[in-house]
Amino acid sequence: MTTERRRSNDMALRQRAKSVIPNGMYGHQNAAILPKNFPQFFSKGEGSHLWDVDGNEYIDYICAYGPIVLGYQHPAVDRAVAEVQDAGDCLNGPSEKMVELAELLVDITPWANWAWFAKNGTDATVYAASVARTATGKGTLLRAHGAYHGAAPTWITAGDMSQQADGTVEYEFNDLASVRTALDEANGDAAAIIVSAFRHDVGFDQEMPTVEFAQGVRDLCDANSIPLILDDVRGGFRLDLAGSWAPLGVDPDLSIYCKAIGNGQPISAVMGRESLAEAVAATFATGSYWFTGAPMAAAYTTITTLQETDGIARMERTGNALREGWQQAADAHGVGIRQTGPVSIPLMLFDGDDFSTRDVPRAYRFSAELADRGVYLHPVHNGFLSTALTDEDVAHTLEASDEAFAAVAAEFND
Amino acid sequence: MTTERRRSNDMALRQRAKSVIPNGMYGHQNAAILPKNFPQFFSKGEGSHLWDVDGNEYIDYICAYGPIVLGYQHPAVDRAVAEVQDAGDCLNGPSEKMVELAELLVDITPWANWAWFAKNGTDATVYAASVARTATGKGTLLRAHGAYHGAAPTWITAGDMSQQADGTVEYEFNDLASVRTALDEANGDAAAIIVSAFRHDVGFDQEMPTVEFAQGVRDLCDANSIPLILDDVRGGFRLDLAGSWAPLGVDPDLSIYCKAIGNGQPISAVMGRESLAEAVAATFATGSYWFTGAPMAAAYTTITTLQETDGIARMERTGNALREGWQQAADAHGVGIRQTGPVSIPLMLFDGDDFSTRDVPRAYRFSAELADRGVYLHPVHNGFLSTALTDEDVAHTLEASDEAFAAVAAEFND
Repeated sequence: MTTERRRSNDMALRQRAKSVIPNGMYGHQNAAILPKNFPQFFSKGEGSHLWDVDGNEYIDYICAYGPIVLGYQHPAVDRAVAEVQDAGDCLNGPSEKMVELAELLVDITPWANWAWFAKNGTDATVYAASVARTATGKGTLLRAHGAYHGAAPTWITAGDMSQQADGTVEYEFNDLASVRTALDEANGDAAAIIVSAFRHDVGFDQEMPTVEFAQGVRDLCDANSIPLILDDVRGGFRLDLAGSWAPLGVDPDLSIYCKAIGNGQPISAVMGRESLAEAVAATFATGSYWFTGAPMAAAYTTITTLQETDGIARMERTGNALREGWQQAADAHGVGIRQTGPVSIPLMLFDGDDFSTRDVPRAYRFSAELADRGVYLHPVHNGFLSTALTDEDVAHTLEASDEAFAAVAAEFND
Repeated sequence: MTTERRRSNDMALRQRAKSVIPNGMYGHQNAAILPKNFPQFFSKGEGSHLWDVDGNEYIDYICAYGPIVLGYQHPAVDRAVAEVQDAGDCLNGPSEKMVELAELLVDITPWANWAWFAKNGTDATVYAASVARTATGKGTLLRAHGAYHGAAPTWITAGDMSQQADGTVEYEFNDLASVRTALDEANGDAAAIIVSAFRHDVGFDQEMPTVEFAQGVRDLCDANSIPLILDDVRGGFRLDLAGSWAPLGVDPDLSIYCKAIGNGQPISAVMGRESLAEAVAATFATGSYWFTGAPMAAAYTTITTLQETDGIARMERTGNALREGWQQAADAHGVGIRQTGPVSIPLMLFDGDDFSTRDVPRAYRFSAELADRGVYLHPVHNGFLSTALTDEDVAHTLEASDEAFAAVAAEFND
């Protein structure tokens, strides 16, 4: 079932890139950490499929690492973007799209009174931390050990991501006692608790929060009069349109969106309660492109399309079909796997691989076999589903996966 | 010559915005700090003109605060953007546009060996600081007092921009002795000196660097084995395509671009020397949308269009015509003004106004009169010219300015 994969354009571009970009590439889309047959450079996306620069086609399960939630080249989103761009996208002030988007977000988020927009998730998490510091007059941020909240000095030491930033104290996700200890450690200087909507740390199985943990963190924030910041960059608009903790019945004070919010157009958001509006007004931040209209129009259309098409339920159905199909195939081949986290943000890890040391030969073999069969599934980063995935896509993927599990079993099983 | 200005749509949107955005607006495009007849919301831009949401038309001298350098809706840039968007903009990796843009930038920047892209200017200045810290193993950043290098905790205390960040030591622009003092103050921990291509601090006349200062800072960096970071966000691609210090004959080690680089499409860049490539590879940063193709295609086309049309010289001619015309009109009306900085990034301040305390009634009156005559010139922020400005635009602007100076003279002269 494998087709011949062309690689010459990708190889040529990698070579040219090495001359003008340090190491040839950087950041989370760096193909250097992927199996050798994964391309670095892409040329096209349409619906649930994308194409690399050599014309190889893939059913896509990472969706540009999250942003693509309705599929590539979604007609309604692209029309909304083109309409703004045909009039003027980057002007001396925002367009009415900014107000329309803020109204929509406040409307679908029962606990929140306002929205605030930037470009990157990191802009938004850093800003939320600054707002919390302004509001409380305190300095220390409580964050989970190993959690990723963005690539900025507020959260990480850029040269060594295992080192966390000054001004932060760590707790363990889903461990309320550790949050209490962290509060003690902050010694009266706690400014906020930031928590990911679910645990998606590099190197570990994903983990959903327990209601007890979520409610406990909420209660600790109330008892200490500090804001609870929900980092919903990863989960937002894939789990629940009212925010990923809405199903738990626990509301934050500030919440952060990026990725799926605009189907690939560059926009992030902070939402918050009225009680923090004054701190926002007193906390300066800005960016050259933060007020452009096209991403705001894209976000408005992305969210209303998800509403109108029941997109969250659709992704959940697709995710369940994949999860069940993968489990059956793995069992049939005697390959031990663990599937964790939300079904629409799937992570499959292999028993016997050691993700914490990046010694993951089974995951690499599996995803390399899939890539050769026109399926793009990242070996160690969680996947992202889109509403564009079809039953045919899932059927092809499971067929390819059966052969990939067979290859893993042949190489690694006794 | 004033025309009736409609305001009802803008007023209605401001009212709606107050309900869903803290204070109704934030950041550098907040119209609250502008004369009352300036609009907050815009609907259209074309060439050198833009329109607010009430259909009022303006000749534009701020260009979205810098990004628009070829005029709004530039056909070649918009074609390049549409071509990428019609295939796929936000994918699982960059497109070949990234390599083409990096090659072009390295080609036009004699001292630099590589380019690195992000979204905002702040992303790029913060990253350059992190790279310098990685490269040197030191922590302290030397920066000019009052200089703006972005809205991030690395540079400012967000709640109070007059307070600068921990880990920084201040010197005075164009004062080499103060840089030496700052180096002493850093006490062996200096990681980098960052300097704006020219002084454009809020509240002051602009100031070009002297060759002695630029060369002196360069020599001090060499003597201390630390990188010189040129923050060229404001000046880049308006003063010299090889960087704003190229005319001085002084080369930095890292240089930061944003604003004019992509004619309004969201992209920023760090460029650097080979000696720092290893530190880049060791310094992690990333963003969800950093690798999208459309902004890279826009930047490539913006720069090559500036090359092919001699755009820098064109903006300089327009800037000189405005500067001379404004001076003559001010003199004729007995109004004292000071025009400072590059002619393509003009700042006009009025004798008698006190910009440092924001007590600037003459500037407000002048810009309000211009706005009523269809000319958008910010009262206290430097302007930005585009290559789209025509002789007719300049003639209309000078005609309107004559009346505006008359109004200032009538109100403020004895």
